[in-house]
Amino acid sequence: MGEMRIASGLCLALDFGGTKLAAGLVNWRTGEVLRQARCATVGSRGARGQIADMLGLVEGELGLAGAGRPAIDAVGVSFGGPVDTGRGIVLQSHHVEGWEGLPLAAELGATFHCPVYLENDANAVALGEYRYGAGRGARTVVYITVSTGIGGGIVLEGELWRGSHGVAGEVGHMVVRPGGPLCTCGNRGCLESLASGPSIARRAREALAGGGGSRTAPTDDSRATDGGGSQTAPTDDSCTAGRGGSRTAPTIVAIAGSEEAITAEHVFRAARAGDPLAAQVVASTAEDLGLAIAMLASIVDPERVILGGGVAKAGEQLLAPVRAAFARHAFPLLAGRVAIVQAAAIDEGGLLGAAALVAQAHR
Amino acid sequence: MGEMRIASGLCLALDFGGTKLAAGLVNWRTGEVLRQARCATVGSRGARGQIADMLGLVEGELGLAGAGRPAIDAVGVSFGGPVDTGRGIVLQSHHVEGWEGLPLAAELGATFHCPVYLENDANAVALGEYRYGAGRGARTVVYITVSTGIGGGIVLEGELWRGSHGVAGEVGHMVVRPGGPLCTCGNRGCLESLASGPSIARRAREALAGGGGSRTAPTDDSRATDGGGSQTAPTDDSCTAGRGGSRTAPTIVAIAGSEEAITAEHVFRAARAGDPLAAQVVASTAEDLGLAIAMLASIVDPERVILGGGVAKAGEQLLAPVRAAFARHAFPLLAGRVAIVQAAAIDEGGLLGAAALVAQAHR
Repeated sequence: MGEMRIASGLCLALDFGGTKLAAGLVNWRTGEVLRQARCATVGSRGARGQIADMLGLVEGELGLAGAGRPAIDAVGVSFGGPVDTGRGIVLQSHHVEGWEGLPLAAELGATFHCPVYLENDANAVALGEYRYGAGRGARTVVYITVSTGIGGGIVLEGELWRGSHGVAGEVGHMVVRPGGPLCTCGNRGCLESLASGPSIARRAREALAGGGGSRTAPTDDSRATDGGGSQTAPTDDSCTAGRGGSRTAPTIVAIAGSEEAITAEHVFRAARAGDPLAAQVVASTAEDLGLAIAMLASIVDPERVILGGGVAKAGEQLLAPVRAAFARHAFPLLAGRVAIVQAAAIDEGGLLGAAALVAQAHR
Repeated sequence: MGEMRIASGLCLALDFGGTKLAAGLVNWRTGEVLRQARCATVGSRGARGQIADMLGLVEGELGLAGAGRPAIDAVGVSFGGPVDTGRGIVLQSHHVEGWEGLPLAAELGATFHCPVYLENDANAVALGEYRYGAGRGARTVVYITVSTGIGGGIVLEGELWRGSHGVAGEVGHMVVRPGGPLCTCGNRGCLESLASGPSIARRAREALAGGGGSRTAPTDDSRATDGGGSQTAPTDDSCTAGRGGSRTAPTIVAIAGSEEAITAEHVFRAARAGDPLAAQVVASTAEDLGLAIAMLASIVDPERVILGGGVAKAGEQLLAPVRAAFARHAFPLLAGRVAIVQAAAIDEGGLLGAAALVAQAHR
């Protein structure tokens, strides 16, 4: 059964993320999410346990079991790690054991009796934003997720560009500040080492320790040295009282509770509350993001660049200085022509990305 | 006449360059150049004069006039400036008056009674190398021309990627050293401001003046400061005698005749002859080229990167340190997987690029 059925317009969208699993019943023509369910990713359960948890969501919460279940045309899968799209195989999970070489598409196909499309999350979300979100109306977009790591996906004239080795759009590992901070990949000065959530928190801690100027990459941005007084005069760990003008504003340490607890979200909140050190960290981060976007725009020449991920939830507080930095560093012909916008999907990016894989296959 | 004729396999290839005009009769299936002719570009003759000079080459030297002339399937045109490919119109010439808006494809079509394909030179040469030259056997290549300026062209899965605004592959205006030297485009630290022929000559002059360390961008390359003694101790214009170990080697100034006359070619020649200052300039230039290739490889993920243009004639003297710098800065998964090779066509790159435009249209 199945080969001759008429497209229902519905798909099962699965999102295997590093912190959560999500499943949705999605209208792949419109991107409307009809039902969805999610649970935490439990790393100790391994790949097999995660698949079982996901099927539990699908059969239990979504009601996609039994005779009266909705007909789906296909399954789209967004996976948080490198995959072999053509063969439908997971290559690696950075977080969970047992995924290497697992033929996820074939297994899900046997379960759901329909085609399965598998893609890594950055590419899937890029396609979802292109089709249903902030990329609508554009043909060529670059999506950048700024989160625990920094990833990206490139859609050229409506098609995902995966590259010759499947790593196209690795925006997070483009060297932006040669000789800059050590990155998780082993290189120095990658965008991820400068502007990911943990990197933003590290920049704040370094600035508090008075080492901001010496521990980060050389920069042409004068703001890097004219931010808080703590940069020019090294002080002790609780140096926030020493910064002029911020005595009455809630400082980043007060917001975070302790220096060790600082997250990127605390940095943005402190900057909004008037902490000049936090404002300087936001400015430096935006400078590096805008510079990176200028670099890639000279190569790809996109219509739009879409920023998503947890850090991009800061919205205009981040986007406005990113646009300004882009304009300073971009090839002049592009400076005013590439729109830099926030992703439309916040928590549903993975599900919509998975649905977009189905939509691409049904054109 | 013409619509029903069988493809002859021959095309007329025209190359409107900044310093020369070239015309060729080329087998577009194989890239074999059967006849060719060239003359200097005389800027004062304007666009109309250049077209007349080109037609003179075609009708005179190539013998493409009269009843017994070879049948051609199409005309391919490589133009040294931005063009509107779809409309066959020249947008601008950086060197010669009268080109703006000139419908070159339509005019040549009326003259030769066949289709005409117009493309800017970097894109055309990229396609020529992909099809007939150093890109053969690969599907995705980035071509970089390092000459008076630095340009590039990107071929993805056999198709030219022009970008949303026609500026994709503007490798020369990717910021590689933020805050670095002023570029012709108005930005700072673009690859062109670091590694073009004139930039290489400028770096040598700056190093001779003892200002190399202070006038160029910050660098993580220790070689930038351990090259010649002239960097650590400013000396007068003819400081070459002061550099230890190079007294018996021909210095860059001796080779060039004077400091003002230094060209990139002199720098490479002096480095080969043992001049440590020239060797340091070559090393720094290669470092910046390798870094730029690492940056763009993270985004495009090509199989091969092809270096052409006058500076790339240095061959392995440039390519070997470029590959080493690439390996240091590239995303680890790509470090050993992207081949960096020299262009196959030296003086015929424009003609073969023009022929490749015809081949693309005849697939």
